[in-house]
Amino acid sequence: MPTKHAPQKDIPDIVVGRLPVYLRTLRTLAAEGREITSSSELGARLGLTSAQIRKDLSYFGEFGRQGLGYNIEFLIQQLRRILKVDRMWDVALVGAGDLGRALAHYHGFHERGFIIRMVFDSDPEKIGTQLAGFDVRDMARLVGEIKAAQIKVAMLAVPATAAQKVTDLLMEAGIRAILNYAPTALSVPRDVQVQNIDPTVHLQRMTFYLEG
Amino acid sequence: MPTKHAPQKDIPDIVVGRLPVYLRTLRTLAAEGREITSSSELGARLGLTSAQIRKDLSYFGEFGRQGLGYNIEFLIQQLRRILKVDRMWDVALVGAGDLGRALAHYHGFHERGFIIRMVFDSDPEKIGTQLAGFDVRDMARLVGEIKAAQIKVAMLAVPATAAQKVTDLLMEAGIRAILNYAPTALSVPRDVQVQNIDPTVHLQRMTFYLEG
Repeated sequence: MPTKHAPQKDIPDIVVGRLPVYLRTLRTLAAEGREITSSSELGARLGLTSAQIRKDLSYFGEFGRQGLGYNIEFLIQQLRRILKVDRMWDVALVGAGDLGRALAHYHGFHERGFIIRMVFDSDPEKIGTQLAGFDVRDMARLVGEIKAAQIKVAMLAVPATAAQKVTDLLMEAGIRAILNYAPTALSVPRDVQVQNIDPTVHLQRMTFYLEG
Repeated sequence: MPTKHAPQKDIPDIVVGRLPVYLRTLRTLAAEGREITSSSELGARLGLTSAQIRKDLSYFGEFGRQGLGYNIEFLIQQLRRILKVDRMWDVALVGAGDLGRALAHYHGFHERGFIIRMVFDSDPEKIGTQLAGFDVRDMARLVGEIKAAQIKVAMLAVPATAAQKVTDLLMEAGIRAILNYAPTALSVPRDVQVQNIDPTVHLQRMTFYLEG
């Protein structure tokens, strides 16, 4: 099935943000034994219109045929390629507290393109201890060790007060993408990616809509 | 300082989503001892334009005066009111695994409007044990206990395979907002709020932009 690739310029970031959700949903369908799906079915599962899904995918090529729907396995492979998770990304985790521990134990990363390779902390009581099979490393060696391993992706699970300082070290180490769990905005160069996960932000976004 | 309230209809959800980030940033400024800020300063901290911030806030009223900037404490109070976190929201946490443990231990909720009141799990080995000062409760009693406590907000930290079934119970219990950590889309009635936190979705959104 040949794919006509649209140019990848000027794709709205909000569209890019939906692709991983499409990929996840397609994988669920595949796990259910399904081979073909449609934009309406994906839309129904995700609370989006089928037009939205068709439009989002059309930025990247033609992945289905009118009336025939999408071949699930094919679309999975295309989305993996587009999102660059048809390879594995090594990840450095910074912060071995409660959240760092949960992230280090989480089994969901590996099958979706990511593998934690190193865990750092600055707490002398944590350094050298085992966490989910990792030796917790000394934050003082972060720059050298991340550089040597050529790791480009980091998860930041440190307190807000330490987050910018650690971020500056991550920049020095060559990190290009940070998943930031610290509840604070990070300052990074323009070409570095940051995504923020702050549960309270999500909770407050919902209470706005609730009745008192 | 009188505030002229704009009608709250038809506010784009993306604007609502930025308000908690503005609130968090204002609190950081207040903690730094500051009293006045500007849309340019907020923008610089958040990587947004000052025009964006002024436009977002203008949906809700006039909070600053041209050339004088925003009174930080006043704007904090207004945003707390708008987001309805000028009160405390009781929260039920479902799932006492690694992530549930991290959430139960997290100290960042309380000062921003949320307090975990109950923790549920279905694992007989976890039920009755202590987690961050909570007795882990039997999921079989979830509907009755959430109803009795009139809790409206839940955090879902269960495996994807269990998520929809638990969500259906949460609906029965009267929950109106779910912070969903399970890596799957939930089906809920239209008037129920869901926010999803799936770290892999965020990671994949970033690798899209990285060079191979």
